[in-house]
Amino acid sequence: MASIDPLLENSRTALGAIADSAAQFIAARREAQVGGGASDAEVNARLQVYDFSHATPLRTLAAEVFELLGTHAVRSDHPRYFGLFNPPSLPAAIAGDLIAATVNPQLAVRSHAPAAVEIERKLLRTFGTRIGWAADEVSGAFTSGGSEANHTALLAALARRYPEWPEHGLRSITTRPAIYVSAQAHLAWIKIARSAGLGSDAVRLVSTRDGMRLGGQTLASFVATDAGYDPMLVVATAGTTAHGAIDDLSGIAAVARNLGAHLHVDAAWAGGAMLADEGQALLCGIEKADSVTIDPHKWLCVPMGAGMFLSRDWRPLETAFAVSTDYMPSASRKQRDPYIHSLQWSRRFIGLKLFIALANLGIDGYAEMIRRQLGLGRYLHSALLARGWQVLNESPLPLVCFAPDTTTPDRQDTVVRRIVDHVVATGVAWLSTVDLRGRLVIRACITSYETTQADVDLLLELLDEARTRASILAVGEPS
Amino acid sequence: MASIDPLLENSRTALGAIADSAAQFIAARREAQVGGGASDAEVNARLQVYDFSHATPLRTLAAEVFELLGTHAVRSDHPRYFGLFNPPSLPAAIAGDLIAATVNPQLAVRSHAPAAVEIERKLLRTFGTRIGWAADEVSGAFTSGGSEANHTALLAALARRYPEWPEHGLRSITTRPAIYVSAQAHLAWIKIARSAGLGSDAVRLVSTRDGMRLGGQTLASFVATDAGYDPMLVVATAGTTAHGAIDDLSGIAAVARNLGAHLHVDAAWAGGAMLADEGQALLCGIEKADSVTIDPHKWLCVPMGAGMFLSRDWRPLETAFAVSTDYMPSASRKQRDPYIHSLQWSRRFIGLKLFIALANLGIDGYAEMIRRQLGLGRYLHSALLARGWQVLNESPLPLVCFAPDTTTPDRQDTVVRRIVDHVVATGVAWLSTVDLRGRLVIRACITSYETTQADVDLLLELLDEARTRASILAVGEPS
Repeated sequence: MASIDPLLENSRTALGAIADSAAQFIAARREAQVGGGASDAEVNARLQVYDFSHATPLRTLAAEVFELLGTHAVRSDHPRYFGLFNPPSLPAAIAGDLIAATVNPQLAVRSHAPAAVEIERKLLRTFGTRIGWAADEVSGAFTSGGSEANHTALLAALARRYPEWPEHGLRSITTRPAIYVSAQAHLAWIKIARSAGLGSDAVRLVSTRDGMRLGGQTLASFVATDAGYDPMLVVATAGTTAHGAIDDLSGIAAVARNLGAHLHVDAAWAGGAMLADEGQALLCGIEKADSVTIDPHKWLCVPMGAGMFLSRDWRPLETAFAVSTDYMPSASRKQRDPYIHSLQWSRRFIGLKLFIALANLGIDGYAEMIRRQLGLGRYLHSALLARGWQVLNESPLPLVCFAPDTTTPDRQDTVVRRIVDHVVATGVAWLSTVDLRGRLVIRACITSYETTQADVDLLLELLDEARTRASILAVGEPS
Repeated sequence: MASIDPLLENSRTALGAIADSAAQFIAARREAQVGGGASDAEVNARLQVYDFSHATPLRTLAAEVFELLGTHAVRSDHPRYFGLFNPPSLPAAIAGDLIAATVNPQLAVRSHAPAAVEIERKLLRTFGTRIGWAADEVSGAFTSGGSEANHTALLAALARRYPEWPEHGLRSITTRPAIYVSAQAHLAWIKIARSAGLGSDAVRLVSTRDGMRLGGQTLASFVATDAGYDPMLVVATAGTTAHGAIDDLSGIAAVARNLGAHLHVDAAWAGGAMLADEGQALLCGIEKADSVTIDPHKWLCVPMGAGMFLSRDWRPLETAFAVSTDYMPSASRKQRDPYIHSLQWSRRFIGLKLFIALANLGIDGYAEMIRRQLGLGRYLHSALLARGWQVLNESPLPLVCFAPDTTTPDRQDTVVRRIVDHVVATGVAWLSTVDLRGRLVIRACITSYETTQADVDLLLELLDEARTRASILAVGEPS
């Protein structure tokens, strides 16, 4: 067999050309179909050829994979993808991720990668102070995403409240620890509670009055009548996935304080907007939190996975995560090595993509992007009203829930589903449905920094056309 | 303020040049100092300039960051880094990571990214069948690393054994669940047990007879006398961090079967070697496991973070992780969406870097790399013996633990520390110390696919020189 060295050298020298292809992929995404069309059989047939039985030049592979992924997928990087918070990656953030992959520092211990560790700390301080905390009280960790960050919040809360928990576990706790969270919060909390051994029934889902936003009063009343639980963690959501609601942060903070509970704000999506003053104003009250989740891979448009767990206190993290081992080459507690503050151990340099994007755009550049998206959300909202749609949520974030203004509410679900199917089938735009107070509504979210007013106008036209077709179809049908 | 669009366009077109810099960084790493020298103050001074108050061209930033990370770090990507398992990234794997960052598919639901999901499934099947399982029984998930994969194993084991656990948590379990694992296993198990609410004392650390490798008999005797626990998870390690020991997989499997416990094999490091037939032979018995951890970011040289949790049964994963939500656009259970089999929710396309590296090299190319490294390990072992060192471990993996063959064992720790400090201070090679049966020994591991016999020879010369100096210094000193 030939040596692999020439192959490795060939692949090394191909990196520049592949990054050029990446740049072209970005430039071309506006021209792509938003919703890819292939069947499962087609995808699997395409993959059949890769049996790893022989070497293949990297350039060939890269071209094939760009084509495969660009075609057989919902293109969440498209400017007319109005779906979930999976925005396109900023070029600078892609470059940051590329550098992290190339240098590949490991972020378990500080001594191996002091510059990398300090870069992440600087970012945590930057966001912690935007939240309103003092720079020297900010601690935390970069995570794979919001789910791990929220998971970390639960473990920190357990470590704070129950001194026996690290060593003896939940069996040492005589009360029944519970998490209070809006019924509209991300359901990752269910997984997290299971993973922590609390069980899904420890997640006390509080129904909101308007089906969207949790208020302090509602929470207080719920807790007061929810007998048998020990409210150790209260979670407020800043930007719910379904409706973009921002819970009453100050009201909930007051309830948490009265209960002596840890207050965590899940700002996975909306937290990124705090780089703009307008966004910061929307999250007023967040400074009262004990800990906060912000996902740079959501609003801040860095490649997945990048979450941040921000905390005002490093001690519970150390209680939960510090372990002594003779093969970790550092005085871990003194250095506050990352691995003793985080669920992960050896970890990717997640923060670099955010650092480079932030240094490239500056806070002002990010703020401009955020303001533009907030503005497009308001534009979409008004335009829908002007075109006779019912807007059903009241989010200040660029996420609008709406439905046709129909006199036959019992048909709403069918009509809404038809409208969305029609729009998605065009391949020109993508959006989805969501439940709002028991009815299906249309959900459109501005996710891309490349989305323009013309893109929103095109969506509006498609929606109007789909509404007309759906109404015609619906006439005379049984509901 | 100027619009950010020209800046974004400028950054997009810079990607090719930055990847060229990455290629140069790779070519130049052999010439770098392995251990970077800067003080914390120096690092922080360098970072001071980044206050995010203005935009900065991406090329400038990339050049600065390559320099910063290349200088102020232990260069674990260096061919003479003989430390922990943080190898340099293969160029093809870097390209895969770059494509994942650019396209940025989200791997929560299959419908959004069918090609990406199928690529990961194909990889899981490839490794599952190398383990010795039938292709159609392989399931699992890509993870941020071995820690998350091992964490997943514990949760799967809990889900299998205790039907009430998902909903009611550990309080529904009347016995005391315990994890049996070698005292030489990765201490991430302590964090994992804490995180699961079992507490660190649920990790029953079994001392090995030789201080390195856990045998089935030793485990059976330990469990028999360890009253009060419910042995629900037995972990065997294939390639311990400290000594490269491979536990007695078949013996431990028999014990686990007798106990009715879930058997997990943590092959985070050595599992990658299974791509070579020689490596596969070393892990004989692994096919008896219920689940296995393999970290592609270790031996398979893809950028961090990339772990694999491999399982013969998808049902416990679904029991632990499935949650229904109205905003996830798919029939999740029918499609086996990734987010219902994994701790993470929206997730990076972690598998792509492994897919492209494997398709680029072919299994044979990887096997050649692995054989070369196994051979260098044997060479290092023999050469140390020939040069009068004591080799103290017996790993078939390329990790050698050794010490000077001294007649004054009470001085061993001091001498070993001096030798390692001396070698590291040269900046020519990096290695570390580790505990072996209560004494400090030197640990050298072949981690890079670029390491040559000449690199090992250079290490040997440095070691001999350091031994001479340390012996001279030690003469006449109090021990």
